[in-house]
Amino acid sequence: MPLTINADRLRADFDALSAIGAVAAGSDNPGVNRPSLSAAHLEARRWFLDRAAAAGLTTQVDSAGNHSAILPSRQPSARTLLLGSHLDSVPNGGRFDGALGVLAALEALRTLREAGVALPVHVEAIDFTDEEGTLVGELGSQALAGTLSAEALRLPRGGRPALEAGLARAGLDETQLAKARRDPATLAGYLELHIEQGPRLTQSAIVIGVVTAIVGITSYRVTFTGAANHAGTTPMDARRDAGLGAATFLLTAREMVVRDFPGCAVNIGQMRFEPGAYNIIPSLAELALEFRAPEAARLAELEDTLLSLAGLVARQSGLELNIEPLGGCTPAPMSYQAQAAIIAAAESLALTHTELVSGAGHDAQALAPITPAGMIFVPSRAGISHSPLEFTAWDDCVNGANVLLRAALILAEAA
Amino acid sequence: MPLTINADRLRADFDALSAIGAVAAGSDNPGVNRPSLSAAHLEARRWFLDRAAAAGLTTQVDSAGNHSAILPSRQPSARTLLLGSHLDSVPNGGRFDGALGVLAALEALRTLREAGVALPVHVEAIDFTDEEGTLVGELGSQALAGTLSAEALRLPRGGRPALEAGLARAGLDETQLAKARRDPATLAGYLELHIEQGPRLTQSAIVIGVVTAIVGITSYRVTFTGAANHAGTTPMDARRDAGLGAATFLLTAREMVVRDFPGCAVNIGQMRFEPGAYNIIPSLAELALEFRAPEAARLAELEDTLLSLAGLVARQSGLELNIEPLGGCTPAPMSYQAQAAIIAAAESLALTHTELVSGAGHDAQALAPITPAGMIFVPSRAGISHSPLEFTAWDDCVNGANVLLRAALILAEAA
Repeated sequence: MPLTINADRLRADFDALSAIGAVAAGSDNPGVNRPSLSAAHLEARRWFLDRAAAAGLTTQVDSAGNHSAILPSRQPSARTLLLGSHLDSVPNGGRFDGALGVLAALEALRTLREAGVALPVHVEAIDFTDEEGTLVGELGSQALAGTLSAEALRLPRGGRPALEAGLARAGLDETQLAKARRDPATLAGYLELHIEQGPRLTQSAIVIGVVTAIVGITSYRVTFTGAANHAGTTPMDARRDAGLGAATFLLTAREMVVRDFPGCAVNIGQMRFEPGAYNIIPSLAELALEFRAPEAARLAELEDTLLSLAGLVARQSGLELNIEPLGGCTPAPMSYQAQAAIIAAAESLALTHTELVSGAGHDAQALAPITPAGMIFVPSRAGISHSPLEFTAWDDCVNGANVLLRAALILAEAA
Repeated sequence: MPLTINADRLRADFDALSAIGAVAAGSDNPGVNRPSLSAAHLEARRWFLDRAAAAGLTTQVDSAGNHSAILPSRQPSARTLLLGSHLDSVPNGGRFDGALGVLAALEALRTLREAGVALPVHVEAIDFTDEEGTLVGELGSQALAGTLSAEALRLPRGGRPALEAGLARAGLDETQLAKARRDPATLAGYLELHIEQGPRLTQSAIVIGVVTAIVGITSYRVTFTGAANHAGTTPMDARRDAGLGAATFLLTAREMVVRDFPGCAVNIGQMRFEPGAYNIIPSLAELALEFRAPEAARLAELEDTLLSLAGLVARQSGLELNIEPLGGCTPAPMSYQAQAAIIAAAESLALTHTELVSGAGHDAQALAPITPAGMIFVPSRAGISHSPLEFTAWDDCVNGANVLLRAALILAEAA
């Protein structure tokens, strides 16, 4: 009989971890509040190292605060296969996002250790620092990949005071973060188990998602400018209504993405008009544009399409257009080798599987450029995440952990 | 030769009045800043009464602060033909809006007095209090018509402190405002000369606009509610995007009004989304809806159409809809007798004329329900008003004043 994890032990760990930073414990929808480097997050990380040490695994904390449990190969010069995710949560988040992947990685190492499997790679269960971006976003995985930018530290999403306070609480030295970088030659790959955070697996009643890519994201602030005028005395056909341009752009952008860019997404998350009075035609309409695509070429094509559309709408409506790029991240294709290993693992367990693009960012995004990376998704009830309502059936968690274990074995043996 | 006004005297008055509360005097675009019951406004009103007295006219200030110059009929029991407008301006407004109508009325009375015309009516040039609504809006004309509501005084547009301070500066007693009401049986009609504040006369190179109606206005706060969700992991076809509903409503409302409601107008002056983040699908979109129609039945039909549309959009987009009525005002048709008098006056002067609906509110709106009311429009350069850029060619001002004089004579003789 092929190797499988100890589901009861994984469950005990899951329940113990869920109690750290618990929100509304005992209710139908308990959540956790473990923002990056908060007291609760640091407690969860200490608990993780204690559990690893109790299982006879080597433990390690690097200079970016990444916490690891290591099952060393008998070959000291072996490369390392990383299995990981993160123990931090968004404020008032769910119990599964990130935590499931770290616990499954730890359980995989314990299972391999107990079975006495001799592997040609070190296997490391890693808990990355600040995946959720309460402070910077993918701080630990980017530091490990050598891509943590000075700019991201200078203008962190959560603000400098929060970053400085968090690093101080964790005993980390900002000047040493970059030393967490690993030489890609020392790595054999990266696998991450995560909840889908979307509705596709539950809707199709499929157990395992094989992630083919993590989307790239680009954001722009788009401003249409017309002329403020009297909303009663200015004829309908003589207006330069900035709101008309913004609404036309929103609808047409959505239509074009649905029709011509399957698997991509566009969101206009904010819109506001100036001067903003009932009886004045809007002179200015500003909108928050974000779009996502799974491949770099597709993201660039989508960007061209949407910016051309904005220009066309502005010209047709007699408006001026201002577009302000706000950056983003490039798409991260998952390794074909990792995808094949995940598929083989799912099939060995007779689990249904499907290919999926991840619409959200993950640590695997940071790892993909330096080592073959793969992600395993399990169903999220109603697609809900970042909320105490987040839920994944326990059987799905166990199935995902077993797919992680077996895919790791396949990659390890091929290394 | 038929009677005409003294254009030089009107010009001297116009220049003198424009200096009171002048903004950027001496520039190419001088404006005036005479908000209702401000020091500059009160100075302009005193100047008006002084000019009237100097011309041998009777002067009067009623308990709502309306300032009048009166040319009495030799028949003491005669009814009164009102000619008027307002001397207040919006903050940093133009020199023509309101002021032209009051000065032309004063000049018409002087011309009639000098000509010794015996009229069967008293003719009264009246400067109404607070037409622009810095405090309440059409305060003086509504008080005269007996329609000034306690609610409008309790929750004035400009706030209670501004209203109280303004009334105190003007020596007015709030409890006495309603005493300005006139018995409709004492009135023979109302005529008002005003700049168009829109582009139709200049665009068609026509000198005189014969106003057929002043539009009614209705406002609603419209809110579409969907579900906030992850902008990356939620498929495009599984979203309940409140912004999509709002944009669809904006575009469709505009299309329907342009196609099916000629002469009517719709404006969405503000739109905002919640939670308002780049990476979150908007759960709420709130928009400021205002629409205008020249007839009560048409306004009701437009209201039905737009509210039905909002309901349809909500259902089609899987959104909830909340509509909050914010009131408005009913359309005011101008008297056919007054329109005929204005047309006859324009034709006697060989001036081109066209029928127009006023998209903006005016004191004539308050007067129309109690006495035959008419309005004469003259061209506004580029349709601009409520701005120092507001401009009407002097010849057009003189033509408008002569049409006012002659239309007043026609109405007076028919009275």
